[in-house]
Amino acid sequence: MKNYTKVNVGNEPRTELHDLLGLTGAEVSFNNLPAGAGVPFVHSHKNNEEIYIVLEGKGTATLDEEVVTLNKGDVIKVAPTTKRQFKASDKEGISYICIQVKADSLKEYTANDAVIY
Amino acid sequence: MKNYTKVNVGNEPRTELHDLLGLTGAEVSFNNLPAGAGVPFVHSHKNNEEIYIVLEGKGTATLDEEVVTLNKGDVIKVAPTTKRQFKASDKEGISYICIQVKADSLKEYTANDAVIY
Repeated sequence: MKNYTKVNVGNEPRTELHDLLGLTGAEVSFNNLPAGAGVPFVHSHKNNEEIYIVLEGKGTATLDEEVVTLNKGDVIKVAPTTKRQFKASDKEGISYICIQVKADSLKEYTANDAVIY
Repeated sequence: MKNYTKVNVGNEPRTELHDLLGLTGAEVSFNNLPAGAGVPFVHSHKNNEEIYIVLEGKGTATLDEEVVTLNKGDVIKVAPTTKRQFKASDKEGISYICIQVKADSLKEYTANDAVIY
């Protein structure tokens, strides 16, 4: 395995990094929705947890029956079976990262998985 | 399992989200290094892949023997055994996200793991 891979992500509507970077433990996507736009479907997952990070702008996430407001710096973990749909606010677009990982897949991390030199 | 958890991350030097959000498939940290500062040790991992996302600023990552420049929008996957050390540039700080996941843990994703409504 190459010791690292690198790309630069701009302002494209959606950039999926799994194949671009050769990721093996996550899919990571960058998403930009213009004002008034939303993901055109509701979805959930069979096995994967998602972590959403709001980079800029405003919007809402409908998570099952609840509407959650989204602002810069918000980070939301969504359990696999939660039905979700993201949209930008009517007046301002939103930029967010979505991290998709297999639920319960991380056992040891940080100090417990690290080797310090 | 609660269907979602949410926090807001500000400009703290380091924020670790695993325990705050109850993540089960990743550790996600937000990191801010001021100009001239660097992580004070070199490290690698036993089992975990890391994905670094540069949010703002400039810096460098030393990955094994190679020095890689870091700019806004750069995303780097680092293989577990790669020795790594991040630093801000001398004139400008850097803000980045680090995602830690178990290498080879994600099999099905996006359309293959999703349920669409």
